[in-house]
Amino acid sequence: MTSVITLLTDYGLEDGFVASCHGVIIGIAPDARIIDVCHQVPAGDIRRGAAILAQTLPYLPAGVHVAAVDPAAASTRRSIAVLAGHRVFIGPDNGLLSWALLAAGGARAAYEITNEELFLTPVSATFHGRDIYAPVAAHLGTGREPAELGPQIPLDRLLSLPAPTARLGQEAAEGEVLSVDRWGNVQLSVTAEDLATLGVRTGDPLAVTMGRRQMTVPFRDTYAAVAPGNLVAFTDSAGMVSLAVNGGDAAQRLGLPPGAHVRLARAAEG
Amino acid sequence: MTSVITLLTDYGLEDGFVASCHGVIIGIAPDARIIDVCHQVPAGDIRRGAAILAQTLPYLPAGVHVAAVDPAAASTRRSIAVLAGHRVFIGPDNGLLSWALLAAGGARAAYEITNEELFLTPVSATFHGRDIYAPVAAHLGTGREPAELGPQIPLDRLLSLPAPTARLGQEAAEGEVLSVDRWGNVQLSVTAEDLATLGVRTGDPLAVTMGRRQMTVPFRDTYAAVAPGNLVAFTDSAGMVSLAVNGGDAAQRLGLPPGAHVRLARAAEG
Amino acid sequence: MTSVITLLTDYGLEDGFVASCHGVIIGIAPDARIIDVCHQVPAGDIRRGAAILAQTLPYLPAGVHVAAVDPAAASTRRSIAVLAGHRVFIGPDNGLLSWALLAAGGARAAYEITNEELFLTPVSATFHGRDIYAPVAAHLGTGREPAELGPQIPLDRLLSLPAPTARLGQEAAEGEVLSVDRWGNVQLSVTAEDLATLGVRTGDPLAVTMGRRQMTVPFRDTYAAVAPGNLVAFTDSAGMVSLAVNGGDAAQRLGLPPGAHVRLARAAEG
Repeated sequence: MTSVITLLTDYGLEDGFVASCHGVIIGIAPDARIIDVCHQVPAGDIRRGAAILAQTLPYLPAGVHVAAVDPAAASTRRSIAVLAGHRVFIGPDNGLLSWALLAAGGARAAYEITNEELFLTPVSATFHGRDIYAPVAAHLGTGREPAELGPQIPLDRLLSLPAPTARLGQEAAEGEVLSVDRWGNVQLSVTAEDLATLGVRTGDPLAVTMGRRQMTVPFRDTYAAVAPGNLVAFTDSAGMVSLAVNGGDAAQRLGLPPGAHVRLARAAEG
Repeated sequence: MTSVITLLTDYGLEDGFVASCHGVIIGIAPDARIIDVCHQVPAGDIRRGAAILAQTLPYLPAGVHVAAVDPAAASTRRSIAVLAGHRVFIGPDNGLLSWALLAAGGARAAYEITNEELFLTPVSATFHGRDIYAPVAAHLGTGREPAELGPQIPLDRLLSLPAPTARLGQEAAEGEVLSVDRWGNVQLSVTAEDLATLGVRTGDPLAVTMGRRQMTVPFRDTYAAVAPGNLVAFTDSAGMVSLAVNGGDAAQRLGLPPGAHVRLARAAEG
Repeated sequence: MTSVITLLTDYGLEDGFVASCHGVIIGIAPDARIIDVCHQVPAGDIRRGAAILAQTLPYLPAGVHVAAVDPAAASTRRSIAVLAGHRVFIGPDNGLLSWALLAAGGARAAYEITNEELFLTPVSATFHGRDIYAPVAAHLGTGREPAELGPQIPLDRLLSLPAPTARLGQEAAEGEVLSVDRWGNVQLSVTAEDLATLGVRTGDPLAVTMGRRQMTVPFRDTYAAVAPGNLVAFTDSAGMVSLAVNGGDAAQRLGLPPGAHVRLARAAEG
């Protein structure tokens, strides 16, 4: 059977870095099916990489999932392979994989990747994606066992990202800006289910508090449900509440960067 | 036989959206050959998406061609599958497919996509590319018939983009800026054949009128036929007349955005 | 056996140009495995294209390697196929391939590509990547012989890029900025081996002279070995000495564009 290998990195597409990884994989596992999850993660942005991987994962076939976003550049952390569901995740032990592991049902076993027989030689100090992750993923794709990679690691020793702030109270849901996409849509760490629990239904007005500012925004099915130029809250394709401006850039309009705190409550009908 | 599935979207590459579509397709049709036509269509720019798809189509093997550029976000229009030649096109009924259908020889049959058995569940309100188009394309790639998708639609009920302005008179050809590429080359809705009909041959000077401005530009085989920094008109790789600056940016120099009106005539030899 | 075809161009990803090449290849060689080396080479930048191809090559399986960066737009130079090692390179005879040929062990034979039976018809004046290189590469991928492409060319008639300045003296290594990557890391045409020859070891201070400026920079294993915001020299993933700012942009900080002259020597311990 063809094995699936997916790649998420912050290598960008202006250089041959991604192609090097493809080349290494195909050299070892000529039949592997490679899916590029994203290579334009902002450089070193572990949280953004973790969010993209976790939110894309439900739509990816089970396979070997490589992630490389690593501001510490391999100097201070180990490389790991973690099993979750029928998937294997490979990357640095810096939290990058942690949200995807949750999305995959939780880690079942973890290994430190130390078996140099599976590496490219020499291993560069700064390009573990090409020299370690890619060949190891390819070897797993050809049937090698994770246990061959190195010693097992207790699961509670894996580094995890703190989950995004998300607090569901009696009257309001509090969260933070998870990410901003290319259209300027602002994804919050509040789910559509949270709003349902608060009794907010599609069509209701939503009180949105950002710092000292508060505004009322309609909660609708889609950003296109309001007139062009208008603000709207809607359930995005990952099931999260997002703020958008129909035909505009909500992040810019609201001045909301990733991590900013936001509080959502049902507004009194006007 | 391996089926070919092509994708054109405005999803960008900064996120996992494109990968989601790949993952969904491969999950259903593991042997499908996916070609990414373009994912950097300017957000919501139906005309630009339509032009890229139509101009690339002659070079794509027959297959299932998915397009998703949809500023109305699925709320107000139906999803369609249209047969033309040996190809099947899938996308929103907003005109995006119309120029490609012409390029493929004209629509033969059209279906509204309503068969939810072929969709991902749940279907999000805003991401039909992943939840409807990708799985439907994959099912067609594995041999399902278009007639299984939903009820047939009369061809004259499909929404079409107005063709770009293009008028060929006795003395001049009038058209508009179809698109501007990454080098600043300005593609016009005037074909090299139009110029030939006017008696303009390679090497002739061309009178280019833009609003109240007029200038004389040489018509040559390639933009490299003039000295660096000079304006030139040439037949581009799609057979259209384009304006370029050798080593420079003609769109910026001329201040010509997509849609701007341009008139071309043979200039008196200087 | 599946053939590997790699593509490097300056076509960008905002259009359907790259997809056209994929489509042409797959139409002729349906089983070809295509690797996109890079399509965001700065427009017309032959040196940058040559550097990316040469540095990525060691990680690519042997195959047919197409490169298209061609500011002269095909008007004034021939198209060539060059054999080196077990690889075939296809592109314009403008020096673009020359560094990759060295990386592949040196050219063994070269052919001018003139056999129009293998081209798309008609051939456009400006898009040889799609109309000549892609179909020719695909035909080679299906087993056609390079000798079928056209007449052989003496190897000493191929156009070569001048090698980057790199001079190793008794006390210093001189070189130039080869490239600047997306993080602002500045890659020099000085190898880690050059520094070793000078007696510079990891941990030593390095005297870096740029024009009239001189500064002392630590030479370390990785850019992460210094505190955030600090300058560092390290051996990059291609074995070259690079200047970086941990968490910052060294090219911007130092004002060093590609081609700038740099001198490296062992600094007196402070």
